[in-house]
Amino acid sequence: MKQKLLAEFIGTAMLLIGVVGSGIMAENMSGGNNGIALLANAIATGAMLYVLITTLGPVSGAHFNPAVTLAFALRREHPSAQILPYVVVQIIGGILGVWFTHIMFDLPILQTSTHTRTGIPLWSSEIFATFGLLFVIFGGIKHKPDTVPTLVALYITGAYWFTSSTSFANPAVTIARSLSDTFAGIYPAHMPMFIVMQLIGVAVASLILPQLFKDRT
Amino acid sequence: MKQKLLAEFIGTAMLLIGVVGSGIMAENMSGGNNGIALLANAIATGAMLYVLITTLGPVSGAHFNPAVTLAFALRREHPSAQILPYVVVQIIGGILGVWFTHIMFDLPILQTSTHTRTGIPLWSSEIFATFGLLFVIFGGIKHKPDTVPTLVALYITGAYWFTSSTSFANPAVTIARSLSDTFAGIYPAHMPMFIVMQLIGVAVASLILPQLFKDRT
Amino acid sequence: MKQKLLAEFIGTAMLLIGVVGSGIMAENMSGGNNGIALLANAIATGAMLYVLITTLGPVSGAHFNPAVTLAFALRREHPSAQILPYVVVQIIGGILGVWFTHIMFDLPILQTSTHTRTGIPLWSSEIFATFGLLFVIFGGIKHKPDTVPTLVALYITGAYWFTSSTSFANPAVTIARSLSDTFAGIYPAHMPMFIVMQLIGVAVASLILPQLFKDRT
Amino acid sequence: MKQKLLAEFIGTAMLLIGVVGSGIMAENMSGGNNGIALLANAIATGAMLYVLITTLGPVSGAHFNPAVTLAFALRREHPSAQILPYVVVQIIGGILGVWFTHIMFDLPILQTSTHTRTGIPLWSSEIFATFGLLFVIFGGIKHKPDTVPTLVALYITGAYWFTSSTSFANPAVTIARSLSDTFAGIYPAHMPMFIVMQLIGVAVASLILPQLFKDRT
Repeated sequence: MKQKLLAEFIGTAMLLIGVVGSGIMAENMSGGNNGIALLANAIATGAMLYVLITTLGPVSGAHFNPAVTLAFALRREHPSAQILPYVVVQIIGGILGVWFTHIMFDLPILQTSTHTRTGIPLWSSEIFATFGLLFVIFGGIKHKPDTVPTLVALYITGAYWFTSSTSFANPAVTIARSLSDTFAGIYPAHMPMFIVMQLIGVAVASLILPQLFKDRT
Repeated sequence: MKQKLLAEFIGTAMLLIGVVGSGIMAENMSGGNNGIALLANAIATGAMLYVLITTLGPVSGAHFNPAVTLAFALRREHPSAQILPYVVVQIIGGILGVWFTHIMFDLPILQTSTHTRTGIPLWSSEIFATFGLLFVIFGGIKHKPDTVPTLVALYITGAYWFTSSTSFANPAVTIARSLSDTFAGIYPAHMPMFIVMQLIGVAVASLILPQLFKDRT
Repeated sequence: MKQKLLAEFIGTAMLLIGVVGSGIMAENMSGGNNGIALLANAIATGAMLYVLITTLGPVSGAHFNPAVTLAFALRREHPSAQILPYVVVQIIGGILGVWFTHIMFDLPILQTSTHTRTGIPLWSSEIFATFGLLFVIFGGIKHKPDTVPTLVALYITGAYWFTSSTSFANPAVTIARSLSDTFAGIYPAHMPMFIVMQLIGVAVASLILPQLFKDRT
Repeated sequence: MKQKLLAEFIGTAMLLIGVVGSGIMAENMSGGNNGIALLANAIATGAMLYVLITTLGPVSGAHFNPAVTLAFALRREHPSAQILPYVVVQIIGGILGVWFTHIMFDLPILQTSTHTRTGIPLWSSEIFATFGLLFVIFGGIKHKPDTVPTLVALYITGAYWFTSSTSFANPAVTIARSLSDTFAGIYPAHMPMFIVMQLIGVAVASLILPQLFKDRT
């Protein structure tokens, strides 16, 4: 169990370093062209997801995401007693990852984002983004378990572009990103609705995926 | 059968979300540089194709494309009775995918494209694009079935660039894209000729591929 | 044999469509930023190489390149009697691929390039580029045959950037690209030296690779 | 042993050609947009890493990096007597790779970089970058050895973006890059601290990874 929590902690911290760090670098280097910045941000995020899920999947399941932990628990594939510990270390790991990123990029460690992200378009995006993430995870596990790291990495790389919210799809990531006033940030007051929408995405997935993949409900 | 149609419906809807959504985001963010926009659009589309074919291939075959369904039927690898149901759900799925994308990007749900796409260069592109798509599908199935999701994803990512039409290669996608006045749209009056060319591509493939891969005609 | 030659013909034609077509589209769309254009060109070329080698490798070996055919023949892994037929169809396929690309992009079919590519830096690049191509092919065949399509695709995607010639590394491609006055073209008078350098690259590879991979000379 | 050293020599030379060559080309072509330049540089570097590790891994282990050789030795998976020879040929290979790159790009062969890279943010980046590199290598070897080339390639492609130092993570590469006054260079006086930080990264990895992957200390 200690090893699993260490894996979730390090994995979520590294995920946030990947997301927030590449966002900062991308904004610094792209001369104001947000298209180039988001392309770099998406590629770096996908690369980090692939390596983390491949190396830590066999240790902890490589959730790094309370929505994923919850979805596994709803399928009775994650013990209830391990939900809270997982979620706690994911959140702490994510926050520490953001803070370490600020050190690497010579920014004040403690900040809060001013990046507004709100409204029905973004909220519907988060529902879809989270549904899609669970869709690739559970579809992949059912039909081609070896491809799960690639599935998640490519799905998120694409989803940065095909949702208007850039697909947070992860409550721990959402909380952590509220603490960085950089490219990837989210204004803290807009964070709770993102998390609500992600939970709705989990609910939608629990309804549809069992029909689609004919697995246990 | 119900499960298969559900898979074709969800898959085609998600494909269109990937294509049209990333096109909108790419155009919004790339500051008028269409090269950056098309690069993001191509990468997001390829990513979506990979995840959809990997997860839904074992369920429905992951056609999401009437031209592909028809090509399988011509090879007697898809039952005739299932051609029409497949095509219908693909078209409906594609249209609903476009409409949902408009919600996510805060656009009017009902629109028609003003993006003109016509003329011999684009038509010849669609013949080639569809031929090439069937080439990688049937060549992959013959020699390396596990790589089909990668083959289709990379082929289309490349084909966005090496054909002047950006390779629609899919009647359901063509119909759906006529309903979005955004980066990926096509003026409705130009849609029928694209579909005709795609069907010619199916015919060309049925002539050449059996010679090339020495499989049953 | 007929099937093999058909595969080499179609494969080389499609390779040139990938290279020249994506070069034209990339130049048209990137607003004068050659970095964006070359990035798109490199990604599309790599994607095409992956799909062609995966699907046609089991048919003809997927050379599409006289330098590769020659290198296999020097290792006695390609029958001498099949060298000339392979090279002839590769060259014809490449040229027809370029001409078809011109049709797809609404350009005069018959053209010659005015893109000068000459001098010691570019020539040394072609020696290295061809050596590197054979390095990944024969290293891959020795240690991990399943990865050869990925190896060649990624090598060339990278080599567009890390050589000053953008790595033609292929006499059939060099000849065909002299017939297109577009992004990927090469001034015909500069073509022969490129081919000479590619053959020197084959010679260098035949000296070094057997030491490195301890295989038969 | 001679074969292994040849592999480390050629591999490190080619790695530097990939890194420095693509940096030069990228800067030349991207019209002053460093975001595009770094994207091309990152993709080309990742591509080169994948091909080198796949083809030379079975020969020499494909270290190309004194920090990696040291980390294997600390785990008693690399004979002590082979540490020095490995490191020497890695350094020589890297330097010759840079010089050959200068020939290919028509630059003076002998140069020293004026690119300043110093300060706590960059130093902390190098510690993290090296830790992360060893994390993916040893995590991959433990759980999914076949994916190691992909893991290293994607990790470095991402790390170019999510660390402020662009992740040198390799003393031989650091030394060699000090000899090129181009995009990828590092001012020689700033080189030693980078190497110190990389060695600290090795130490951090030796402490944490055995807990995480429960392997022998």
